[in-house]
Formats: sequence, structure tokens, C-alpha cells
Amino acid sequence: MESFLKKSKKASSVCANLSSMVKNSVLNQMADELENSVLEIISENKRDLDYAKEINLGSALLDRLMLDKDRVAGMAKAIREIATLKEPVGRILEGWRVESGLNIQKVTVPIGVIGIIYESRPNVTSDTAALCFKSGNVCVLKGGKEAEYSNQIIAKVLQKVLIRNNLPKELMALLPDSSREGVSKLIKMDKFVDLIIPRGGEGLIKFVSNNASVPVVKHDKGLCHTYIDASADVKKALDVCLNAKCRRVGICGAMETLLVHKKIANEVLPLLESEFKKFDTELRGCKKTQKILNVTLATDEDFDTEYLDNILSIKIVKNTKEAITHISKFGSGHSDAIITEDYSNAEEFLNGIDSACVYLNASTQFTDGGEFGFGAEVGISTNKLHARGPMGINELTTYKFKIYGNGHIR
Amino acid sequence: MESFLKKSKKASSVCANLSSMVKNSVLNQMADELENSVLEIISENKRDLDYAKEINLGSALLDRLMLDKDRVAGMAKAIREIATLKEPVGRILEGWRVESGLNIQKVTVPIGVIGIIYESRPNVTSDTAALCFKSGNVCVLKGGKEAEYSNQIIAKVLQKVLIRNNLPKELMALLPDSSREGVSKLIKMDKFVDLIIPRGGEGLIKFVSNNASVPVVKHDKGLCHTYIDASADVKKALDVCLNAKCRRVGICGAMETLLVHKKIANEVLPLLESEFKKFDTELRGCKKTQKILNVTLATDEDFDTEYLDNILSIKIVKNTKEAITHISKFGSGHSDAIITEDYSNAEEFLNGIDSACVYLNASTQFTDGGEFGFGAEVGISTNKLHARGPMGINELTTYKFKIYGNGHIR
Repeated sequence: MESFLKKSKKASSVCANLSSMVKNSVLNQMADELENSVLEIISENKRDLDYAKEINLGSALLDRLMLDKDRVAGMAKAIREIATLKEPVGRILEGWRVESGLNIQKVTVPIGVIGIIYESRPNVTSDTAALCFKSGNVCVLKGGKEAEYSNQIIAKVLQKVLIRNNLPKELMALLPDSSREGVSKLIKMDKFVDLIIPRGGEGLIKFVSNNASVPVVKHDKGLCHTYIDASADVKKALDVCLNAKCRRVGICGAMETLLVHKKIANEVLPLLESEFKKFDTELRGCKKTQKILNVTLATDEDFDTEYLDNILSIKIVKNTKEAITHISKFGSGHSDAIITEDYSNAEEFLNGIDSACVYLNASTQFTDGGEFGFGAEVGISTNKLHARGPMGINELTTYKFKIYGNGHIR
Repeated sequence: MESFLKKSKKASSVCANLSSMVKNSVLNQMADELENSVLEIISENKRDLDYAKEINLGSALLDRLMLDKDRVAGMAKAIREIATLKEPVGRILEGWRVESGLNIQKVTVPIGVIGIIYESRPNVTSDTAALCFKSGNVCVLKGGKEAEYSNQIIAKVLQKVLIRNNLPKELMALLPDSSREGVSKLIKMDKFVDLIIPRGGEGLIKFVSNNASVPVVKHDKGLCHTYIDASADVKKALDVCLNAKCRRVGICGAMETLLVHKKIANEVLPLLESEFKKFDTELRGCKKTQKILNVTLATDEDFDTEYLDNILSIKIVKNTKEAITHISKFGSGHSDAIITEDYSNAEEFLNGIDSACVYLNASTQFTDGGEFGFGAEVGISTNKLHARGPMGINELTTYKFKIYGNGHIR
């Protein structure tokens, strides 16, 4: 492991200073090569699928795992789009002259070696490899066991293009030891690895956070709230809540808990109930909600659960302050929204909620790199430091100070 | 510990949204209160000094520990200066409208609860408390055992002002259990603590990095290099090297290793030797250096050592590339400089060195928040993420996205 990561570290100085032109050419070649290798990829993917069926993986997971011609074309398209993104390295974030006369530039640079731990979908392998490459980083990828053959063939195809371009294949590599022990070792190699991004279940993220000596940017759960204030526009409230819950129930930006001001609850809850009925959404509610709707009781455990399912907890609150208190206690700092026409309540909520994304009169499902205009996303960070919320390619860079003097002494 | 940190977390929502006016008024009152309490502070400081003498602490450490009327006035002045800094919270870093019509603002917010672990100088207690308060953060301070009485009285004075202003005293508090076990617990409390900043020896930093589940911004060592290129202006080279080594030998930005291009070594090394003689600097050199200067051999261990002392290792290299390779191997990513008049060599060095601060024709001792124009500094981060190099008050903030819609659904 150490000798492998030593090579990754060494490779990082190669890719840190590649020109956009070279990087984009290599990425476009990779896209072509993926399409040229489609039969080989599908046949390796079939080995994963066969094994997955053998161990009775659920149909949703099987679908995430499956690759066909269209999906491989989608992977190639994603890489071509990443090639078109604006060069993230070498941006001058700030520049100024200090009292002593030195000229300082704060310039973006790659982070270095990034370890990414993820699950299921094999397209994540090519997406993240391309994002890391475009931003001048070396990636060490650890995909799910269930996608092992698929990930290996994808990495092999990408590396073939690297080699053809006289670049070290270590720029994009799978972690050689993909066991839990391999991960344990990886996250302690702060001498060679600069960042770990774990994307996956709570167990994985807790394990990585607790044991890593390498800095971690978590992609943790989203326990997202929408609060309908007394002054909400009812039409907007209905539209936004339906979308926040039902557009897709399994993504981290989906609403899990609805908070409703007591003054508007009698009007809005029955309307919501009949809308949610169309989507077969199961509603659970606090005791006050139960006086309005015929629903099962929502306990503190419900309010503390990221369902990722077609279930919604409802709680009636007496004001914006109580909504904020509830979210501070149960929220995961991902995305929360207020529906209101009242300026002061809106600002109280937007400033008082300590989450990556706070929305006024909009669906929390907008939390997404593409929707934010970032072009492609690494994921949604639930870290407070370095990157928060949707992570685009710029969030895969850090900065350094370039200081120009002329014999300056202090 | 947990109930203490729970209060810290709760207090963080109070100070996140205080107005500049309130914060600055409180800070100025704190400065006054420190000056009013000078006798009490000096008498508590004497208890620390007495104990330090008893255990035979060295004179340099005794001097760092000692408080007198002037130094307390200096602490008060530092707080007043922090009060004058531009409000770091609520800055809109970017704002844009996305395709769907949503208006997104990327706005600075406080980090939350920050644990700071440091040593010796009691003024760090008031400085960091003031910097955290101004940036809307709660601080949990863990100073050195040797300054315990001094830190306690300083915290008490600051808290007195908080209480007088109806603010929770938990906004600025010392860690109740200041033992190693106390620190062990603190760095695992990711539920309540958002950031740990360890400032101190390698042992402390390694311990914190390896055991923390809370994100860490390290203030680690500085093994800084200056490289004199073949085309260097000799006068600038002499001035800058003298300053980088001898201005103060004990700070992290001091030069520890000098690299010299072989073409200029014969000319510049004897001149440097006679200059360094005036400062009694001990020179050690590689074998090639020994052919020019009468010095002891510098081993790999020397090149790997942050002396923080009046000692300099010298190595002759054949070009900029070899200088970069040496620095990549032995450097600590803090500050490194090239002295050259050659454009291409300058850019090769500035882009090729992966350090927080890279200098052209200037002394590495400029790495300092004050010199960078940040007004006051938390320290010098050797992290690559979140904050790199001198950390000013803005680096004590993170950001969130405020998203303004009008019933927008995805």
C-alpha cells in the first residue's frame, strides 16, 4: 500500500502542472476509448451482475449497478462535458500589494492525492477520475465490492489512454486492497494522501471520520426540512412541498420532515394530505397534527430519521423560532427551506439555520452541482470546512500564495 | 465535558448573529477590563512564574510566560485592533442566478465552536478569544499547564464583560479538563465542536491529527528553504538569506536549509559565510559545499530538521529541478523561496513547489498574517484544506448558500 501511494504522490507533481489543452485532449480520448470498449465493459459488468443476483441484491441496487450501451455512452458524455469546464487550476482568487511592497497572489492549485470511497454505480468511477484529472489531482478510487469487475475494466480503459499519452497510470488508480483493512490503511496515510471523500452509508462515514488522519470531506446524510410559515402563499407551499418530498424520495436533498406554523396548519394540512395521497406518501404527525389529519404518531425517532423513502413526518410549531430550534436539534446541516411571504421571518430562518443550503420558497431538491451551475459535481459535502454543499470542480482545488519580491527583507 | 460542550454549541447560535456594533463594543470593554485588572493579572501570573522557576523552566520560556504592565497593555491594544477589523461574517463571496431562476448567494458564516490548543504565551488566550468572538465563533481554549493561573484570570476578566453584556460566558471558555485526557475527549466531540486548531510541538499535532474526529487545521512546523539560482543577483541573495535565517531564528518562517546552484556557489558561498559569521550562525554543508567552505557535513538528518536555532544546512544543486526535488522530499510545505533574475526558473519554482507560501526574491520570514495585511493572525496553517498559510480572521469563517426562490420546483 505504501509503495503504491508513494507512486500516487509522485504522480501528483506531474498532473498539477499539465496544461488545459493536454488535459482536455486526454479526457476526450478517454471518452472515445470508453465507447470503443463498450462490449468489454458490458461483459465485465455482467460478471458483477451475475454475482449480485447470486447474493440476491435488491432490484434497485441491481439497476444502479447495470451498464448497457446507453449508460456507457452517458459516461463518455459526462467526461466530454468535464473537458469543457473552465480550467480550475491557476485562478487568481485575490491579488494585492502589501505595505512592504511585496505583491501577493492567492492562486488555486490542485489538492494533491484524493482518495474517494463510494458504492454501487460504476459511472462514479469514470466521473470522479475525470473530475480529479481535470482539477490536476491524482485519484485513488475505492468502489463497492459489488462493482469490482466493472470498476476494474473502466480504470483499465482510462489508464490505457494515460499510457498512450506518456502519463503515469497512477494518475487514476483503484485502491489495490479494496477490503475494509485496505480502507483503514488508506485513511491513515497522511504522508501521501491529502484528502479522503467518503460517499456512502452512515457506518462508512463514521468509520472514516473516526479513524482517518487524512483530512475528510464527508458526503453524509440529508435530513432536510421544509417549514411553512403563517404567511406562506398556500399555492407555493403545496408545489414546493410536493416537489421536495416526491420528485425523488431517495436522494439526500429530499424533504424528510415538514414543519407547519400553527396558524396555517388547519388550512394547509388537509390540502397537502390530498396532494400527497396522489403519490401514496405515508404521513406521520405530531399530536397536534393528529387533531387535523388522521395519521400515525410521529415520534422523536421519526424526526431523527432520514427515510429516503415515501414517508413524511409532520410537526406543528408555534413560530419561526421553534422551527429553527427543531431543525437545529434534528437536522443534518444539508438543506432546509422556509415558505413565507414575510421578510423578517425569511431572514430569521435563512440566517438562523446552520445548514449548507437554506432556501426561501424553493424545493430542497435543488441542492445539486448541476442545478447550481457547477457543471458536474463530486457530491454534496456535509462538512463545514473546505467545501460545503454541492462540490464542483473548483472545490477540488486549494490555494497557495505566490509572493513576488525584489530583494525584500523583513 | 459533554455538558460543557453542549453549552458551547448552544452559545454558538447566539454569537453567530451578533451585530458588528455589539461585538466591537464588547471587545473594547474587554480591552479596558484587562487594563483595569492589570494588578490581579500580574499577581496570578506570578504564581505561574514561581512554579515555572521551581521546575527550572528555561529563561526563554520564562520570558514568554511573563506578564507585566506593558504586556497587558499590549494585549488590550491587540483586542482593540481586532475590533477595528472589517466584519468577517455575512460577506457575499459570490452571487448568481441559475438556469431555473433561483438566486444563489454564497455567504460567509462563523464556523461554530472552535477548540484551540496552544502553549506558553498567555496573550494567545486573549488574542484568540477576541478573534473567535469577532468572527462569530465560540472558542474553547486549552492553554499550557505552565500558564494555567494566567489563562484563568484572563478568561475570568473576559467573561466578566460577557456577563455584563448579557451574553453567555460560554462564548469564551477554558477547557475544564486541561489534562491530556481532556484533550483526547475534546477532539472526539464532533457533535459539538466544529474545528480544532492545535498550535505547538510535533508530538501534540501528531496526537491530535491521529485521534481527532473533529476536523483539524494544523499549525505545524516550518522547514523552510531558500534556493539561490545561477542567475541570482548576489546582493539580493545575501540580503534575503541573512534575513530569512537571522532576523529571528526561532520562528516557523525562518530558513533552515539553503540550496545553491553549482554555477554560483563558488562566488556566493564565501560571501555568505562572512556575513553569517557576524551572526555566529553555524553552517553545515553537503560534500560539495565542503569543497568551498570549511564546515561540518550536513547529513540527511540535518536536511530533515527544523532547527529553530542559529544553524543552517547548505546543499549545492545542479538546477532548479533538483532544488524542487529536494524541497519536495524534505520541506514541510510552509514557505520556500527562490532568488533568481530568470523568468522561467522563477515560474518553474513558484509553480513546482507545493507549499503554502512560495517567494521570489524575498525572505521567507514574511509569512505572517500581519505582513500579509490580515490585521491579526490566528497562526500559520500547514493544512492544505480550508486555510493554508497565514490565517486571518476571514479564515475563521466558512460559507453557506442562501437560495432565494419564488415557489421554484425542480
